[in-house]
Amino acid sequence: MTPIQPLPGFRDFLPEDWARQNYIFKKWWEVARRYGFVQWEGPPLEPTELYTKKSGPEIVGQLFNFTDKGEREVALRPELTPTLARVVASHDREFKKPLKWFSMPHCFRYEKQQRGRLREHFQFNADIIGEASLDADVELIALCVDLLREFGFSANDVVVRISDREFWIDFLRAQNVPEEKWQETLQIVDKSEREPREKTATKLGPLAQPVFKILDGEGSSEKLDRAFDALRVRGLADFVQIDLGIVRGLAYYTGIVFEAFDRGGKLRALAGGGRYDNLIHQLSDGAVSLPAIGFAMGDVVLAELINEIPAAKAKMELAVAPQREVDIYIVIAKEERRADALAQIQSLRDRGYRVDFPLAPAKVGKQFQAAEQLGARGAILFGDEWPEVKVKDLHTGEQRLVPSEIIRQTMEEIFRRFVP
Amino acid sequence: MTPIQPLPGFRDFLPEDWARQNYIFKKWWEVARRYGFVQWEGPPLEPTELYTKKSGPEIVGQLFNFTDKGEREVALRPELTPTLARVVASHDREFKKPLKWFSMPHCFRYEKQQRGRLREHFQFNADIIGEASLDADVELIALCVDLLREFGFSANDVVVRISDREFWIDFLRAQNVPEEKWQETLQIVDKSEREPREKTATKLGPLAQPVFKILDGEGSSEKLDRAFDALRVRGLADFVQIDLGIVRGLAYYTGIVFEAFDRGGKLRALAGGGRYDNLIHQLSDGAVSLPAIGFAMGDVVLAELINEIPAAKAKMELAVAPQREVDIYIVIAKEERRADALAQIQSLRDRGYRVDFPLAPAKVGKQFQAAEQLGARGAILFGDEWPEVKVKDLHTGEQRLVPSEIIRQTMEEIFRRFVP
Repeated sequence: MTPIQPLPGFRDFLPEDWARQNYIFKKWWEVARRYGFVQWEGPPLEPTELYTKKSGPEIVGQLFNFTDKGEREVALRPELTPTLARVVASHDREFKKPLKWFSMPHCFRYEKQQRGRLREHFQFNADIIGEASLDADVELIALCVDLLREFGFSANDVVVRISDREFWIDFLRAQNVPEEKWQETLQIVDKSEREPREKTATKLGPLAQPVFKILDGEGSSEKLDRAFDALRVRGLADFVQIDLGIVRGLAYYTGIVFEAFDRGGKLRALAGGGRYDNLIHQLSDGAVSLPAIGFAMGDVVLAELINEIPAAKAKMELAVAPQREVDIYIVIAKEERRADALAQIQSLRDRGYRVDFPLAPAKVGKQFQAAEQLGARGAILFGDEWPEVKVKDLHTGEQRLVPSEIIRQTMEEIFRRFVP
Repeated sequence: MTPIQPLPGFRDFLPEDWARQNYIFKKWWEVARRYGFVQWEGPPLEPTELYTKKSGPEIVGQLFNFTDKGEREVALRPELTPTLARVVASHDREFKKPLKWFSMPHCFRYEKQQRGRLREHFQFNADIIGEASLDADVELIALCVDLLREFGFSANDVVVRISDREFWIDFLRAQNVPEEKWQETLQIVDKSEREPREKTATKLGPLAQPVFKILDGEGSSEKLDRAFDALRVRGLADFVQIDLGIVRGLAYYTGIVFEAFDRGGKLRALAGGGRYDNLIHQLSDGAVSLPAIGFAMGDVVLAELINEIPAAKAKMELAVAPQREVDIYIVIAKEERRADALAQIQSLRDRGYRVDFPLAPAKVGKQFQAAEQLGARGAILFGDEWPEVKVKDLHTGEQRLVPSEIIRQTMEEIFRRFVP
């Protein structure tokens, strides 16, 4: 019999993997808080209707959906925005606007596994709800840039490309494209970067020439220029590029849209989002109308890029090492001293030190080996010297005998010396 | 049309709710790390077989299970232990034993909603794998106690009741109870606390008298006495009680078992666990044999008790307040100064300050109101005084004009004064 395996596209996180995950979560959290965003969460399982209502019935093909034991149609969330719209609409009156909310949900989709795309991922989400001004768009794009900067990426590593759906709608109107063709046309533009011009030209027909002019940089948008200026004021211009080729496939965007990429262009988008001023209205059946803008950043592509950019990788490895380590290892050289050692262990842990010790009798040499493997900075040996103990500074190798009453104090000295 | 609701038994976490959730997660994390445990994670969706193999086909009735689009039988995890056994068995050779691993998974079960029981909860899990000695059991029980202490509970608020399955097996053997009746008998004992003695007596038949003697305190176990002594050495005796009435329903426990309760006895168990030395062998089809002990603590009952015990509640509220707050609010009194303000905002955020500002023009009074609501300690007003700005200490009300070049420095002074 083969042992049971995890499902395809799902990850087991061993401690060293999870330490890196925690690093990503912590950075997401810190930068969002610096921007004054507050964290919320929603359920990982929702009524399927929440997603079909936003994205149409086709979305079901990409969901982990099922009928529960109470005959409800339910789905593992593929994204957080519909939940956000539901939650904001039902608590609309409790909060002063604008809301600056972020979340780091675990999301799921039933799709073919590929590089940078699993069947589950963690996704940073940030949204500003209830503010239509361009400053909200700029604040959110700046947050996206600063998240990337925080991971150690420079403007040579990443770029956020910003565009405007409104520009395209104006264009389609000026070209007399009937409204029912807009979405289809925008999806052709969205794909144009990834296919030969000829193919796109065939699809676009008479629109091909004017569209290509725009993609080649002849279009201009006063709104995008203003957004870019505001980002320059913040010192973030190097990370940002106006690019009308970004339109994003989804139908519900209404204004500024943006996507973040690695400059090398090898990976999928690191992040993407935009303004969706009508979605809350639509998902709440007209009960609540609020302008909104948001974006999401997934952990899978982000981790790939961190591993490719040496500065980012070094930053991560430096940060994760302590997540695996203990501060102090207690060496029990004589089993008769175990009780005395346990009392000290408790006292040191109560002071906040991370302390480990052998759970069963072991040779002293093996115990010091364990201390080293766990990255302990100090070791305390309980043995023949009792009521004195041997305190060893594992960085310098220095050791001395101290009375057991002053163990804590001695440890504090060692740690004062070694704070990195 | 009624707006879409969350599924029954699932929670939306508004920012103030999530701040309290984060408080629980942080405490769990900190105490586990002090004990030298490292964090790991598994998938929230697993093959259903993983759970039926451990708990029998009846478990399916309590699962969110379904057939996925690839015809796989899958289930949302009701608990983490089967995943742990799977992961440990498949990485057995990569790690030195014992493993001290913890996790904080989101778990799901399709059950009737009741007080303290939803259809999803977050669950702290800690396990020591590969160590059969009683010191491992004691280390884990101590961790359970210290988690509760960390939330501000005293020995008057909570108790961990410890028992031993082996004691009961020895008893059943001595009473010549056939092995196929053991599990059933233990489940009767497990339920006895919650039903009248007469009812239990009828179920137990001739075993009733000897069982009641044990439940009334006449039984004794040398192993439990040793465990209790080791907990006393750690100063935790007040939080622990030997109680052979604890047997835990699950079939796979093999030694020490324990459960944590509120002393008032009003709530469900706060935590529970025990030794399961055969489970990894069984779940890995005999590929790997490792002794193990673990326990879990759910967030729902824990949060109920925190809210009932004033000291615990006060500790939580003190800790969560800053999670909603910003450090500095930027008041833009003249829109012409917005660009200058934005440059400063970026610079202050780069230094790690949490900074917010009005995303659209607003009256100065309203902006100061927002500053107060967000709990800001400092405000900086950009207006007519430019290139000087008005810096206001919102705790003391003190304000002064400073040149814009020294904003950062001035802020640092204010924050040095106000570190709590």
